[in-house]
Amino acid sequence: MGAATEDDRVRVALIGSGRMGAFHGATLAARLPNARLVTVVDPAPGAAERLAREFGVDSSTDMAAVLADDGVDAVVIAAPARFHTELVVAAAAAGKAVFCEKPMAVSLADADRAIAAAHAAGVPLQVGFNRRFAPDWAAARALLDDGTVGTPRLLRSVTRDPGGFDPGRVPADTIFLETLIHDFDTLLFLNPGVEPVEVHATADALVEPDWKDRGLLDTAVVTVTFANGSIGVAEACFQATYGYDVRGEVFGSGGMATMGDGRTSGMTFSGPAGRVTTTVRSDQELLAGAYVAELAAFAEAVRRGTEAVVTGVDARRALSIALAAAESVRTGRSVRIADPTP
Amino acid sequence: MGAATEDDRVRVALIGSGRMGAFHGATLAARLPNARLVTVVDPAPGAAERLAREFGVDSSTDMAAVLADDGVDAVVIAAPARFHTELVVAAAAAGKAVFCEKPMAVSLADADRAIAAAHAAGVPLQVGFNRRFAPDWAAARALLDDGTVGTPRLLRSVTRDPGGFDPGRVPADTIFLETLIHDFDTLLFLNPGVEPVEVHATADALVEPDWKDRGLLDTAVVTVTFANGSIGVAEACFQATYGYDVRGEVFGSGGMATMGDGRTSGMTFSGPAGRVTTTVRSDQELLAGAYVAELAAFAEAVRRGTEAVVTGVDARRALSIALAAAESVRTGRSVRIADPTP
Amino acid sequence: MGAATEDDRVRVALIGSGRMGAFHGATLAARLPNARLVTVVDPAPGAAERLAREFGVDSSTDMAAVLADDGVDAVVIAAPARFHTELVVAAAAAGKAVFCEKPMAVSLADADRAIAAAHAAGVPLQVGFNRRFAPDWAAARALLDDGTVGTPRLLRSVTRDPGGFDPGRVPADTIFLETLIHDFDTLLFLNPGVEPVEVHATADALVEPDWKDRGLLDTAVVTVTFANGSIGVAEACFQATYGYDVRGEVFGSGGMATMGDGRTSGMTFSGPAGRVTTTVRSDQELLAGAYVAELAAFAEAVRRGTEAVVTGVDARRALSIALAAAESVRTGRSVRIADPTP
Amino acid sequence: MGAATEDDRVRVALIGSGRMGAFHGATLAARLPNARLVTVVDPAPGAAERLAREFGVDSSTDMAAVLADDGVDAVVIAAPARFHTELVVAAAAAGKAVFCEKPMAVSLADADRAIAAAHAAGVPLQVGFNRRFAPDWAAARALLDDGTVGTPRLLRSVTRDPGGFDPGRVPADTIFLETLIHDFDTLLFLNPGVEPVEVHATADALVEPDWKDRGLLDTAVVTVTFANGSIGVAEACFQATYGYDVRGEVFGSGGMATMGDGRTSGMTFSGPAGRVTTTVRSDQELLAGAYVAELAAFAEAVRRGTEAVVTGVDARRALSIALAAAESVRTGRSVRIADPTP
Repeated sequence: MGAATEDDRVRVALIGSGRMGAFHGATLAARLPNARLVTVVDPAPGAAERLAREFGVDSSTDMAAVLADDGVDAVVIAAPARFHTELVVAAAAAGKAVFCEKPMAVSLADADRAIAAAHAAGVPLQVGFNRRFAPDWAAARALLDDGTVGTPRLLRSVTRDPGGFDPGRVPADTIFLETLIHDFDTLLFLNPGVEPVEVHATADALVEPDWKDRGLLDTAVVTVTFANGSIGVAEACFQATYGYDVRGEVFGSGGMATMGDGRTSGMTFSGPAGRVTTTVRSDQELLAGAYVAELAAFAEAVRRGTEAVVTGVDARRALSIALAAAESVRTGRSVRIADPTP
Repeated sequence: MGAATEDDRVRVALIGSGRMGAFHGATLAARLPNARLVTVVDPAPGAAERLAREFGVDSSTDMAAVLADDGVDAVVIAAPARFHTELVVAAAAAGKAVFCEKPMAVSLADADRAIAAAHAAGVPLQVGFNRRFAPDWAAARALLDDGTVGTPRLLRSVTRDPGGFDPGRVPADTIFLETLIHDFDTLLFLNPGVEPVEVHATADALVEPDWKDRGLLDTAVVTVTFANGSIGVAEACFQATYGYDVRGEVFGSGGMATMGDGRTSGMTFSGPAGRVTTTVRSDQELLAGAYVAELAAFAEAVRRGTEAVVTGVDARRALSIALAAAESVRTGRSVRIADPTP
Repeated sequence: MGAATEDDRVRVALIGSGRMGAFHGATLAARLPNARLVTVVDPAPGAAERLAREFGVDSSTDMAAVLADDGVDAVVIAAPARFHTELVVAAAAAGKAVFCEKPMAVSLADADRAIAAAHAAGVPLQVGFNRRFAPDWAAARALLDDGTVGTPRLLRSVTRDPGGFDPGRVPADTIFLETLIHDFDTLLFLNPGVEPVEVHATADALVEPDWKDRGLLDTAVVTVTFANGSIGVAEACFQATYGYDVRGEVFGSGGMATMGDGRTSGMTFSGPAGRVTTTVRSDQELLAGAYVAELAAFAEAVRRGTEAVVTGVDARRALSIALAAAESVRTGRSVRIADPTP
Repeated sequence: MGAATEDDRVRVALIGSGRMGAFHGATLAARLPNARLVTVVDPAPGAAERLAREFGVDSSTDMAAVLADDGVDAVVIAAPARFHTELVVAAAAAGKAVFCEKPMAVSLADADRAIAAAHAAGVPLQVGFNRRFAPDWAAARALLDDGTVGTPRLLRSVTRDPGGFDPGRVPADTIFLETLIHDFDTLLFLNPGVEPVEVHATADALVEPDWKDRGLLDTAVVTVTFANGSIGVAEACFQATYGYDVRGEVFGSGGMATMGDGRTSGMTFSGPAGRVTTTVRSDQELLAGAYVAELAAFAEAVRRGTEAVVTGVDARRALSIALAAAESVRTGRSVRIADPTP
């Protein structure tokens, strides 16, 4: 019963069993019509096993064996960021389609390696820029594509985390490479076909001032000038008392689209304190649908043999802004972007 | 691989392959971690087969055979409304857990038969009052349960359909028995533990005036007075140019909760016409999450052997208001509700 | 300097020096380009004097003398409700233009007397139905007048007071004659040219249950059926924890207009409790602009010799609904309105 | 009648009879309880006369005579920007209290001269930074003053004009000196007691690209770094299809306040295009109340002999950011602010 259908679904190995691994795993295990989780891989003994048991699938500590398994069509990489590029290269070399959480790479050379590996293997490579799949952002992009917004003039993308981070575990430049990388991609997504040409950044340690001398920046504003003169502002902070705050704005010759309604629901309570709406506490809550949609889109690209909708080249473009922003903070000067899409 | 888990999932037969059947079938086929669709049943030759093929499951035109199948734990009834009660009784008698789309019954005697059948068989019986599972409504109920809203004084529930109905196919009293039944349940849900005592209704054929003499009412306002003096207003119309509009309000001694944000997304476009937000066009769009959540809750009740969260008795209470409303329109007088929960 | 201009402005005597008198007086004293306050009249010794001193104008305890004064063009009546009709009749007889706070009358006979007096004297008579001048309501009416809303099908008008009333000082039927009278006028305003034909009301004492046996009702829902089949709901309660709540909705064949944004400002604070907007506490805060606009419109009618924009006949129509609602509560039955506009 | 009160009101001469002169004149003529317009001055023959006639006051083409008039307590300067500083100096020297439209000066030397003149004469000097008086902004500042917002980390101020400007009549640097000057003041207002230390600006001619080589910039983003590490972004564009758009945001350790609800009213229409709210078209519409409130506050400072609430020093601080922004665009580098408040 139903066997024919199951054959159709993309068989996915999940790499990594941390917070994002568990989240993507739950989606792959039960929420997608076109993909199914077959195994969880993590080199740490016991980690993959615990998660796999929850989903009722296999587990492994042996990456090579999983990549060699013909019963696996694709991998979803949710390992720590520093392993991302190597995992992309290895999985592509093994002929697996690759979905990689951001950042795909933290240097342009690594980005180029990852892109080349996927290209050489002829496999789809998709990067986890989830906002492109969030309804607000997709709707804004549709108004750009149909001409309603006109030519973009001013853009904005904001990310504020609810906080609770451990400053001792956050690498330097994280705010650019792991947080604002989403916003840089968003600015590019909302300014389709236009290259970024110059970046200026200001940043400080305002949440955890004691960590500033160790290089931890937790608050930043980055201005990106584009080839057509339009100007984007990306802004982040690692602590917001009201929850996870992701918003965007694109203002063009035809009008403005605004995105990001961080309410937990449409219910509003009016009481002695006024009108109160509760707000979301986490990215997984705010972007729940987007996380599902990006994996569904990835599985569809695998099934149909088409290019992924957010590619390694997209990751490289966002990375080129992130690296320029970090340099701008170090030098106090604007930084030109030589070649975002070589 | 994963065999153990599948055994855990509730095996569901879908009864009915129309619009709601297709919708519930898609949820059961791929979106629930605790249930799975095993077969689709429809007496019309070919109908179940077409839908079942899409989901990769079995199909049947033989209801008796499906109800006799040990491989089926539960049924989801999405057949035409006039068959609902008989199907509930038959499925319960066969020992299957029952989820029945509203209305479970269109007479109090039928409601009692359905309730008695489930009771005698010791199976869960859940009715498809989806709003209880919509985030806004659930959040409002939470504020009632924790005392924030205080004692309800005024309540409101609105349903407006986007239109496009065929007046020749809408039975008389549909606005009360099939549309406002949701709103009556909502009023009861937002006034927990309080019985309705009197109903007054006004209704007319304003969308399709030519059909009034055939008994089709398309616009109605129903006032429900509760035992504690609180007053609820339920209101419906079969045509709204802006889409599907479901809203609620409960105003109590502590404050007011409002529900129903019918936007397709949080994206707003500001242009020459002002600020524009697109609105949802269908119940399946507005209540997508609620439809999934109600089936997940049903499956959970089946797995745990607990009572369903929306029962046959709840269906009977809403029905008692609907019947009183229809009578009020016919007589032009207020109608007492003798015994909503016998 | 400027003497010529002052001659142009309508010279107004304010009758009554209570809460509404002080409020209208401040508007007349300093905020209107086309009217100016010349005197305050109150039979209570000292009352008018105190208020007049604040505005730098004359005061009097002698109504007859003020009405005989050629230096007074118009009166604004803000005395207790039970004196309204007599004051309208006397002022009209003296040839003064009349602005009368609602209710202009509490019986149809009194309403007819007031209308006849203004008619016989050929003076403008305007009633204080302020919502017609509030921007939201005026904007909705504009969309009715230009056809955007289409033919009204369902209407709603809500008034909830912030509370703090002294039940011992509230006459019976106040909720219909003084509070909901605004909502009845609003329903008529949003259903232009259509007569109300039947009224059904439900009411109770939910805020002050101990006062119910003395006839004080503090919570009410009134359904008004119109000649074209459209149905209006007016709803009121004397206590809302979140402030003064006045909202409206008109739903027609072309779409829906909603009114009533009771925020003190567009500032929103997002903090640990979620998103919070403060709400207005009083009618004078919510409708500040409307109170100014209605007096400016009255003065303009006086200066130009045109009919007032809200007339004694409008007051009579709203009153006919209020009286029917009170009767409906007493009898438990729907009440026909014989002739709202004789 | 009322003579005593009139003596109390501040007697104001309006200098300038253009668009802003007419607007301020209407406020002074009829909307303020504590000030009154006595004369309009404009050197252009006939200009002052036409406006004065409308308000029923005197007019003059002789500035010296008006400044020498003992019947004038204060001046409101609404002349072209290039005359502002000289007019402030002359009026202060004549012992008149001074309200000056922004910009008070376009060089720091001029700003210092204006401040010194008011100081030497001991007269109040207020600058027309109207947003401080707009309800949203005042409410946000109150949450800063009471500690709710905490220490500011990220700030934003946006101004977008509805367009229709004549590029041939806009001086170079107007976007910084006349438009963004409001936003710079807003950033300072929302970051009380903290000095700006560095400015980076990006700007272009995106609305009127042909005018770029003549120095006209119509779109700009300015980043301001403050002494406490907080970062402000000011952003402007000379053309927005949806009307006049002024918004602000202050995000601090305690939460975030957002300002700027550019709706014409709280009325929303839901129709086939979705949900539509109309938006304001002009600064005079959006900030109507703020324009009245700033003049009332000025008159109150004059009457009580207290310092103005927005001073010449405030104007100098905003100017120091504007000049740095213009320099940053010219040099492509960040610019330090030596001493914003000498």
